[in-house]
Amino acid sequence: MTIYIDAMGGDHAPKEIVKGAVEAVKEYNVPVTLVGKKEAIEQELIAFGFDDPRITIMPAESVIGFNEEPVQAVRHKKDSSIVTALTAMKEDPNSVLISAGSTGALLVGGQLLLGRIKGVKRPGLGTVFPQGKDRKVFVIDVGASSDSKPDYLLTYAKLAKIYSESVLGETNPKIGLINVGTEAEKGSMLAKEAHTLLENSGLNFAGNVEARDIPTTPVNILVCDGFTGNVVLKLTEGLMSFILHSIKDALLGSVKGKLGALLIKDDLKAFKDAYNPDEYGGSPLLGIKGGIIKAHGSSGSYAIKNTVKQAMQFQENHVVELLSKEMETNA
Amino acid sequence: MTIYIDAMGGDHAPKEIVKGAVEAVKEYNVPVTLVGKKEAIEQELIAFGFDDPRITIMPAESVIGFNEEPVQAVRHKKDSSIVTALTAMKEDPNSVLISAGSTGALLVGGQLLLGRIKGVKRPGLGTVFPQGKDRKVFVIDVGASSDSKPDYLLTYAKLAKIYSESVLGETNPKIGLINVGTEAEKGSMLAKEAHTLLENSGLNFAGNVEARDIPTTPVNILVCDGFTGNVVLKLTEGLMSFILHSIKDALLGSVKGKLGALLIKDDLKAFKDAYNPDEYGGSPLLGIKGGIIKAHGSSGSYAIKNTVKQAMQFQENHVVELLSKEMETNA
Repeated sequence: MTIYIDAMGGDHAPKEIVKGAVEAVKEYNVPVTLVGKKEAIEQELIAFGFDDPRITIMPAESVIGFNEEPVQAVRHKKDSSIVTALTAMKEDPNSVLISAGSTGALLVGGQLLLGRIKGVKRPGLGTVFPQGKDRKVFVIDVGASSDSKPDYLLTYAKLAKIYSESVLGETNPKIGLINVGTEAEKGSMLAKEAHTLLENSGLNFAGNVEARDIPTTPVNILVCDGFTGNVVLKLTEGLMSFILHSIKDALLGSVKGKLGALLIKDDLKAFKDAYNPDEYGGSPLLGIKGGIIKAHGSSGSYAIKNTVKQAMQFQENHVVELLSKEMETNA
Repeated sequence: MTIYIDAMGGDHAPKEIVKGAVEAVKEYNVPVTLVGKKEAIEQELIAFGFDDPRITIMPAESVIGFNEEPVQAVRHKKDSSIVTALTAMKEDPNSVLISAGSTGALLVGGQLLLGRIKGVKRPGLGTVFPQGKDRKVFVIDVGASSDSKPDYLLTYAKLAKIYSESVLGETNPKIGLINVGTEAEKGSMLAKEAHTLLENSGLNFAGNVEARDIPTTPVNILVCDGFTGNVVLKLTEGLMSFILHSIKDALLGSVKGKLGALLIKDDLKAFKDAYNPDEYGGSPLLGIKGGIIKAHGSSGSYAIKNTVKQAMQFQENHVVELLSKEMETNA
């Protein structure tokens, strides 16, 4: 029952990853295993002045880059941080891997090395969309499969239900389907068939949700194909950053605006914090026989620290075991 | 060569539609034909004190609602404003219909009554995404077809090129493909095949554009399937409104914030104006043998007025003729 942290994955690795791990160990008193280049990790630990038995280093000499073809990379880079960690997890059923590295490598590696939960044809990558202070919706799939099928979406809903209950603290979470209209007969063939499956699933299905309502929808879970989910995730990131920058630019163009900007600085920061996905850690890859949490590529130490907390909840609640049971029950 | 305006379509019909028509006639000195319930239109014209020979009324007794099944509605409601206008357009090749009514009815009615341009399997609905003052990107398809095929996307690109050049004033517009990664091999099967077709099309294809870059991309045209485009369109609307409301709420929570809000009011308004899609009129439905422009369901008079201007450009530049030629040349 180990929390493995890929020290080499992400834009700010290893520095921010190691820093986040150190912060998590201090704050949550949890042991973690950093996987990656030994010297590089040690150097960071020395820089933070942190020499603590709760941190273990598992050496791994290479790194899988963002642009490497995942299947090739997983097959050939046996000494990469991701493959090394996943290989160790085979012997360690309730362990969790946190990585800000290649989503594709985690997805392929997870399936090849740990396998899928029985009944799961495709794992789903889920992520929390903040909707303001203490409000959120969990969206799945945000990119594990670009080509989806109606029964994948049903599986995502089942997996997300368990995750939502055990890690996000929801009770009998409401599930919505992202679609181009609210009526059952609207949408692509995929969405229409998924709608029928969800309606007959016994899950707490609330129907279609239009993209315009994602920021405010009262449902707890939104399911969609991975292409759509990825577009939703990235457009939200892009627009949020773009709008805030544009407002800033607009204000700095006038004296009144500059003065106003000074006055609203704190409130704007509080607003940004309430919508910071880093608060919720990373994106769990659900459906694998093992815990895999994908942290954002741009993760800083704060995101990594929160992802460790999420990994602890994942373990404490035996999420993988619960997911397996749910899939069995519904088989 | 008439501009028909569906006086009965949209959330604020007929009042705002008629008002927008009156404003357009005054500002652009253009004759328009309002299609809909005669008395209702006359009443609005009287209320605006506008009795002018440049406005003609074409009576149509019924209206197709947003939730009516389009094929049934178009077949059975021959006296609806949309069917009446489209029927008149058959005899009037370079005419344009503006409607804030049912997109489905316009799409079905346009194809049944006017037909598709030769070589166009599916018309595409395009819309301008403002990217700030004088910057914009034209996105197509935003919802004409929920299930798309690679060659539809190629057709959208060809149609959009002509529209972009003749109405939006671009020269040899750059075309991007909305996808989940920038590399050619990324994405769904649809996106990958469309990428290949676009790359070999002779069009000015700039490759994949990730959703996070839509607000800032330098390309002039983005093509995608109608499901994705609809999600992009509606999520943008939803997030823009949500973020601005949330910032407002955050500011009104503190005295400093309230004072700041007063100071930034004008700059914030300028920002909102720069991103107001109403500036660009409505969404053209490209690929039909006739001009059809879908105005937003919530259109007020300002949007309608700008859509009339867009319709004039559509006519002056003989867009339908140019689209037909482009499809022939590339056949």
